[in-house]
Amino acid sequence: MARESELLAALTRIFSRGTDDAVIVGIGDDAAVVKASLTPLALATDMAVEGTHFNRNWSSLYEIGAKVTAANFADIFAMGGQPEYLLVAAALPKNFTVEEIEELALGIYDEAASVGALVVGGDLTYSERIVISISVFGSVARPLLRSGAHVGDRVLLSRLTGESAAGLAILQRGILDGDSAEHRNPTVEYEKAQAISSIAHSLTDVSDGLISELSQIADASHVQIEIDRELLQSSEGFSRLASLATEHGCDVWEWILHGGEDHAFLATVPSGVTIPSGFIEIGRVVAGSRVLVDGFIAEHQGFTHFE
Amino acid sequence: MARESELLAALTRIFSRGTDDAVIVGIGDDAAVVKASLTPLALATDMAVEGTHFNRNWSSLYEIGAKVTAANFADIFAMGGQPEYLLVAAALPKNFTVEEIEELALGIYDEAASVGALVVGGDLTYSERIVISISVFGSVARPLLRSGAHVGDRVLLSRLTGESAAGLAILQRGILDGDSAEHRNPTVEYEKAQAISSIAHSLTDVSDGLISELSQIADASHVQIEIDRELLQSSEGFSRLASLATEHGCDVWEWILHGGEDHAFLATVPSGVTIPSGFIEIGRVVAGSRVLVDGFIAEHQGFTHFE
Repeated sequence: MARESELLAALTRIFSRGTDDAVIVGIGDDAAVVKASLTPLALATDMAVEGTHFNRNWSSLYEIGAKVTAANFADIFAMGGQPEYLLVAAALPKNFTVEEIEELALGIYDEAASVGALVVGGDLTYSERIVISISVFGSVARPLLRSGAHVGDRVLLSRLTGESAAGLAILQRGILDGDSAEHRNPTVEYEKAQAISSIAHSLTDVSDGLISELSQIADASHVQIEIDRELLQSSEGFSRLASLATEHGCDVWEWILHGGEDHAFLATVPSGVTIPSGFIEIGRVVAGSRVLVDGFIAEHQGFTHFE
Repeated sequence: MARESELLAALTRIFSRGTDDAVIVGIGDDAAVVKASLTPLALATDMAVEGTHFNRNWSSLYEIGAKVTAANFADIFAMGGQPEYLLVAAALPKNFTVEEIEELALGIYDEAASVGALVVGGDLTYSERIVISISVFGSVARPLLRSGAHVGDRVLLSRLTGESAAGLAILQRGILDGDSAEHRNPTVEYEKAQAISSIAHSLTDVSDGLISELSQIADASHVQIEIDRELLQSSEGFSRLASLATEHGCDVWEWILHGGEDHAFLATVPSGVTIPSGFIEIGRVVAGSRVLVDGFIAEHQGFTHFE
C-alpha cells in the first residue's frame, strides 16, 4: 500500500507542471491564492461516485479523471464562462497505488490543460469506493441563464443527444466496444459553447436529459418550447443511433429525449443571427409554458436544480 | 424514500435564505456567478467521509455539517483570508430523509453565516456512506504562508491543542459526554485568526497535529523551531487534559503534539509586537532546520501537503 505522502507527492508532481502568473500560491499551503479577477466569477462543483457515475470495469482511471473534469467544465461553458482554476478532492481505497493516482491525475490534468485551466489545490482521503469532487472557478463576462430564452428564439443543440445513454445500455449488456465511448469519456465541445455564447439568449448543457433541460429553460424563462422529432431525425448520427437502439432492443427516442450525461450544449438564439457551424436547429420558443414534442406535451421532470 | 427533487428543494430553501448583492446568479443554474473581486482570491477544499472524519453515532447531522464547513474556513483564515462563498457537494444514502438533509444543511448554513459566507451552489448524489465535499472561495489581501517564518519570531498557538484527539479517544471508549465536544464539533476561533493575521509572519491551522505543522513551517521557511513543554503545560486547559489522559490511560503529550483536527491557529510573529489576547507563546524561531521540543529533535512527519 502506498503511503499518503507518496500519493500526495505524485499529485503535486503532476498538478504543479502547469503554472500561471496569476497563481500567487499554488499547491502546498492551507489554501491556494490567485490574482483578483476583472470579470465576474463562475463557480461550479460536481461529485462522482464509483458505481454511480463511473465503473472501473468500463473506464480507465485516466478516462474517469477526464470525465469528471469535463462535466464540471461543461457547467462553466454553459454559463458562457471560461474555466480557470480547479480544486480536486478525492476519497480513494486504501490499496490505491501511486501508478493509479498518477493515471487519475493525468486524466484531470490533460482535460484541464485542454481548456487552459489549472489544478491549484485539493484534498485526499480514504473511502472504499472512489469519490471524486471537483470544483471549478472561471470567469464570465455575460452569464447565460436558463431564464434568458425569448419568444421567437430558435432552439439549437450542439450535437444529437442520446450517445451517452446508448453507451450505458451497451455497457450494461456486457459489451465493451467503441459504441460506448461517449458514455465512458464524453466529448464536451468547448469550442462550440464558446462560438454560441456570444449570440445565445440562453445556454445550458444536457446533463439531465434533453426534455428535462428544455423544461427548465421553459420554466425559468416563462416560455413554451416546441421541438420537432423530424429535425432531430435528420441530424448527423441519428441513423447510427437508431440502428444501435434496434440492435439492443432499446427506444432511440428515450435515449435522445431523456438520456443524461451527454453534455451537448442546448441554446436558444434570436431568429435573425447566423448559426455557428455544427449546431442542429431542433425547434422554437413560443408563448406558453410547456415543452411540446411534435405538438404533444412532453413529460415534465420538473425538479429543482441545486447546482 | 425522499425523491431527489424534494432533497434538492430542501437544500435550495435553506441555502437561498442568505443573500448578498455580490451574488449575480445563485443556486439553480449551471454555475453560480459572483461579482469580480478587488483582492486576490483564496481557494480551499475539504472532503469528509462517514466513518473516517465523522460518525453518526457520535455527532448529529447538524454538527457534521458545521464541522466540515469549519475545517474549510480554518484553511482560508489560516491564509489570512476571509471566506465568502461555498460550494457544497454531497453523496448521501438512498434512505436519507428531507428532515436529515435539512439538519445537515442547517449546520453548514449556520457555520457559514457565522463568518458572513454564503452557499451559492452544489451537487447532490448517492453513496452508501455520507461523503461531503466543501469548497470555499474567499478574499485575501496579504497571504500568510508557511514559508513566512523569520529567525527571531515568537511561536504562538491560539489555544492548547489535543482536545480533538482527547475527544476521539473518549468516544472510542464508548463514552458520549461533553469531554468529546471538541472532536464532534470543533470550535474554530475565527476572531483570533483575524486578530493575529495583521501581525503574523506565518500562519496555519493545526489540522494534522502540532509537530507536523511546525515541521512544515520549519521546512518551508528554512528555519528551526524550538518549543517548550513548560509553556504548553502552564496554559489554560492543560491540567484538565492531563487528568482526562490519566483517566483514560492515554499520553497527554501524544494528544497535544500529534493530535489532529484541532484547528487551533499556529502563528509566528516578530518579537517586538503586542500579542493579541488569548494566544499562548510556545517557543521561538531560530537558525537551523529542525523542530525541537525541550531541546530534543521531534519526530518529523515530513509529508507533502496537497491542500
